[in-house]
Amino acid sequence: MKTKQYVDAARGKTPLDLKIVNAKVVNVFNDSISPGDIGILGRRIVCVGDLKDHPAKEVLDADGRYALPGFVDSHMHVESSMLTPVNFAKVVLTNGTTSCAADPHEIGNVMGFAGVKALIEASKDLPPHIYYYAPSTIPSAPGFEDSGFVVGAKETETFLNMEGIYGLGEVMDFNGVANGEEHILSVVETAKRHGTILDGHLPGLTGFPLQAYRASGIDSDHTVNTPEKVLEDLSLGFTCQAHGANLSPELIRVMEEAPVSNRLCLCTDDVSLTTLFHQGHLNYVVEKAISLGLDPLKAIRFATINPADRMRLYDTGAIAPGRMADIQLVEDLCHPKPDTVLSEGRIVVRDGAFLPDLPSYPFPEEVYHTMKIAPLKEEDFRTEIDIPEDRDGTALVNVIRLTDIVFRTLPGQREMPFTSRGDGKGLLDYRGLTKLTIFNRHGKDQHAFGFVEDLGDVQGAVAITYSHDSHNLSVYGDNDSDMAAAANAVIEAGGGFAAVQDGKVLSLVPLPVAGLLTEEDPETMLAASDGFCEACRKMGFPLDNPIHFFTFLPLAVSLSIRCTDKGLIDVVHKEMLPLVAGIRYED
Amino acid sequence: MKTKQYVDAARGKTPLDLKIVNAKVVNVFNDSISPGDIGILGRRIVCVGDLKDHPAKEVLDADGRYALPGFVDSHMHVESSMLTPVNFAKVVLTNGTTSCAADPHEIGNVMGFAGVKALIEASKDLPPHIYYYAPSTIPSAPGFEDSGFVVGAKETETFLNMEGIYGLGEVMDFNGVANGEEHILSVVETAKRHGTILDGHLPGLTGFPLQAYRASGIDSDHTVNTPEKVLEDLSLGFTCQAHGANLSPELIRVMEEAPVSNRLCLCTDDVSLTTLFHQGHLNYVVEKAISLGLDPLKAIRFATINPADRMRLYDTGAIAPGRMADIQLVEDLCHPKPDTVLSEGRIVVRDGAFLPDLPSYPFPEEVYHTMKIAPLKEEDFRTEIDIPEDRDGTALVNVIRLTDIVFRTLPGQREMPFTSRGDGKGLLDYRGLTKLTIFNRHGKDQHAFGFVEDLGDVQGAVAITYSHDSHNLSVYGDNDSDMAAAANAVIEAGGGFAAVQDGKVLSLVPLPVAGLLTEEDPETMLAASDGFCEACRKMGFPLDNPIHFFTFLPLAVSLSIRCTDKGLIDVVHKEMLPLVAGIRYED
Repeated sequence: MKTKQYVDAARGKTPLDLKIVNAKVVNVFNDSISPGDIGILGRRIVCVGDLKDHPAKEVLDADGRYALPGFVDSHMHVESSMLTPVNFAKVVLTNGTTSCAADPHEIGNVMGFAGVKALIEASKDLPPHIYYYAPSTIPSAPGFEDSGFVVGAKETETFLNMEGIYGLGEVMDFNGVANGEEHILSVVETAKRHGTILDGHLPGLTGFPLQAYRASGIDSDHTVNTPEKVLEDLSLGFTCQAHGANLSPELIRVMEEAPVSNRLCLCTDDVSLTTLFHQGHLNYVVEKAISLGLDPLKAIRFATINPADRMRLYDTGAIAPGRMADIQLVEDLCHPKPDTVLSEGRIVVRDGAFLPDLPSYPFPEEVYHTMKIAPLKEEDFRTEIDIPEDRDGTALVNVIRLTDIVFRTLPGQREMPFTSRGDGKGLLDYRGLTKLTIFNRHGKDQHAFGFVEDLGDVQGAVAITYSHDSHNLSVYGDNDSDMAAAANAVIEAGGGFAAVQDGKVLSLVPLPVAGLLTEEDPETMLAASDGFCEACRKMGFPLDNPIHFFTFLPLAVSLSIRCTDKGLIDVVHKEMLPLVAGIRYED
Repeated sequence: MKTKQYVDAARGKTPLDLKIVNAKVVNVFNDSISPGDIGILGRRIVCVGDLKDHPAKEVLDADGRYALPGFVDSHMHVESSMLTPVNFAKVVLTNGTTSCAADPHEIGNVMGFAGVKALIEASKDLPPHIYYYAPSTIPSAPGFEDSGFVVGAKETETFLNMEGIYGLGEVMDFNGVANGEEHILSVVETAKRHGTILDGHLPGLTGFPLQAYRASGIDSDHTVNTPEKVLEDLSLGFTCQAHGANLSPELIRVMEEAPVSNRLCLCTDDVSLTTLFHQGHLNYVVEKAISLGLDPLKAIRFATINPADRMRLYDTGAIAPGRMADIQLVEDLCHPKPDTVLSEGRIVVRDGAFLPDLPSYPFPEEVYHTMKIAPLKEEDFRTEIDIPEDRDGTALVNVIRLTDIVFRTLPGQREMPFTSRGDGKGLLDYRGLTKLTIFNRHGKDQHAFGFVEDLGDVQGAVAITYSHDSHNLSVYGDNDSDMAAAANAVIEAGGGFAAVQDGKVLSLVPLPVAGLLTEEDPETMLAASDGFCEACRKMGFPLDNPIHFFTFLPLAVSLSIRCTDKGLIDVVHKEMLPLVAGIRYED
């Protein structure tokens, strides 16, 4: 479109392509709402106000609804939905998100360049606009896990030269950065040479380590979860991106009262398909923020122009001339669920229904072959420990304890009896705990065990290949036979998750694309996921959201104790923990 | 500097290069002031707070003074100072300005690429950081004046590919943009293809023409001069850059109360050397804004982080880790005149004195040869009009009337007797008015006349080559003989300004660099300028700031009537006005 066409249409000299009339237009530049119309030509808004004298080819009556800018999500991961981009697009657009900054580090962990490239290709020309960032921290905890790829300076250089890459994704090795470790700093330095956006991930970092992290050049934090952290981050010039799970009345009060608020954003980070369907996307975070006390206009600002500014999208995030026509019409400002959504001037959602018939992207064959692991046997799951003397006894075992805080675990120790097998090995009796076995699925013969307390009286096993961030094969259960069966079910499916009880597969949800994504449509996938969750509950897992739980438990950069294919990790002290802390023999 | 060095110094593991202790640190991210220290390594700040345990090679005691970020001027012109960059640097740094967005359109009008390039070269490696923008509107009023260069799409392309160019300078042909005129839109489109910053200039533009201007992609306005204009501009997402002359209590109230304020800036635009010395630079605008009611912390924010954000300088404008160590220490927050200034970590001003011994830039020879006009004769100034009949009579003449508003003129008409010369020409008797003659000095044989009312009873003449924006040779006076003498004095000097009375040169201030700049040091130039102003007053010009007046009167994009080398212009209606509106013969 020529600039002259925009100018002429703004003046009413030539017809608009589309005129939205009778709207309550939300202005994020002055926190106001004005009745009026919106004039659109091509992909852009060209005028706003009383447009009765502006000719238009098409008119859309907003019928008094609020017109908001499409939401802009400044930190998220497409893969969290377990949907391919085309299906992800449908679900988020019906929730009003029209732009995302996506760190494709899930598929990057599995497949490296090829995976990221496939995701970029699969997102091309889609509404919404998905701006991919180069994954910076693969594996997320170097030395503590093995994934299918390793990112260093060289790989970062390649990523940043890749078409469709807009920044450096969350630098998760925050201790590495703050401690001046060469490997991760070489990644950061490479991105700095490109002059690109540098996104952070720095939970709990404070004081001079926090300042050191900021001094490295990285200037956003989507892990803010306390008022104090928001205030300290803001004072250093970080953009604070609060995601839904971290919102609290206290945190919201700080966001509401900030005297300078343009570096405050709302974001989604990881949103599962279940959450997407039952709660929403960024609109749910906005709604939650408002319900916790944030002024609705501020909440909208924090989810539109602020993230657009953060992402250096100078023509996005507002309803004003010159901006992209990414617009949503909503009935209730405090529950922004749009019935109409425009992306780049095109109506993509009407009466809540997704309109475009988007072609599926033909993924390259290699994405379907990422389970680089042979079928497993029951014995592979046996938790035997080395015992110097061939006698029965009791082992003091380091275990993972759960807390009320999502994703937060605590280290614990439990005594477990063991039976000598007469060959220097003792078989642990872990009754009352759930066993977790993580197998490297990227071609390395490596696995490790952990035990999880507080998961109740489970009967059966679950296996899953979507397992942050290395996406190794994680298997949870109370017996080795079901664990092997569950593992083999997902290996055979090319990835996915399965629930097995008494040798019977209760649920199998394949994730053939990199072991992370389904190509099924969202509704089919939701039904399958629901079936899996139902099976988990039947097996005794006392979890509200089993998929969420299983995918996040191995995340080796979250507090406080985690299990990977290399073993147990004390995340706080950045050290491996032995499974067995001590042995006592029977008298 | 390696990132690791910043990180280690921030942690106190390795010594800082410089530690500023005992400061009241102004934080522009949360509008706060905290007692503390500032740690600097190389060019950057790496930590802030209580740094008593941080080793440092050098310590600077702020002695309780406020530490502010260096001021960032998002719209200005270096040439306004009539100083070369190296001398400009001295004066603005002693006033606390450490970064500027400079539109070199003065020298661009005179010399095109060569002039802009010379200015960029002359500014290289200087403190402050001068970010040059490509001049977009040369001549400022195409068709209504001839300067030494013409900017179109092709020239813009060349400018934007020039090293040291950071954006598109103020697009002054605002009516051209809003009316969809191809020439200026092709310039804008070229810059849009480069994805660069697009700066505006749109005085008085409102309603749909204003929206059309915004729809073109340009998104800043440094001409805001009323509360209504600020509110309307802001509502459309313009960055509003208020310069000192436009500040009023009403305008300040709107800036103070804006619910979203990150697109509000203070700027200087054109600051003469006299103003620089007697009032200051951006610090004076800040001071004035505060005195008119703006919260001091907001005023500082509007002159630091906000313009830095506007200029996409992501590491400038704040005292925080990762930011450039551009810092000033001031005694009084409401009168920010720094005694110490750091630019990129280097102390450049101490006890108010400029420290570095900066080398003068050797300009290329061509900058000294821009007076492309032969010496003038008295007859060249004779105001003869065409008369159909060879009789004496009275002409109705269009004249320029002055107003109380700076730079604002109004059209007027005056009757002037004329004497027939018997050859179809009548000689005007313009007693009581001042004659203005503008000669093209860029090689085109073209000149025009105007008459200025309200300049009192002048005796003598003034000639000047710094004459916005075409910088033609402007000569003001009450008699042709002195006018010719003044003109010839500046022609011979290679440009500059001169005052002549009764054939005697009272003052001559050469501006040999492009007829715009002196290479003298600031103090010498100030004394010379003061001498010229004194001479003007002696000659009867009733002007507070004669240089300012003479340089701006021909500006063909300012309201309402102007005179250029092509004649009188009605700026409002964008049309030429004849000098003579009618003729009446004596009975």
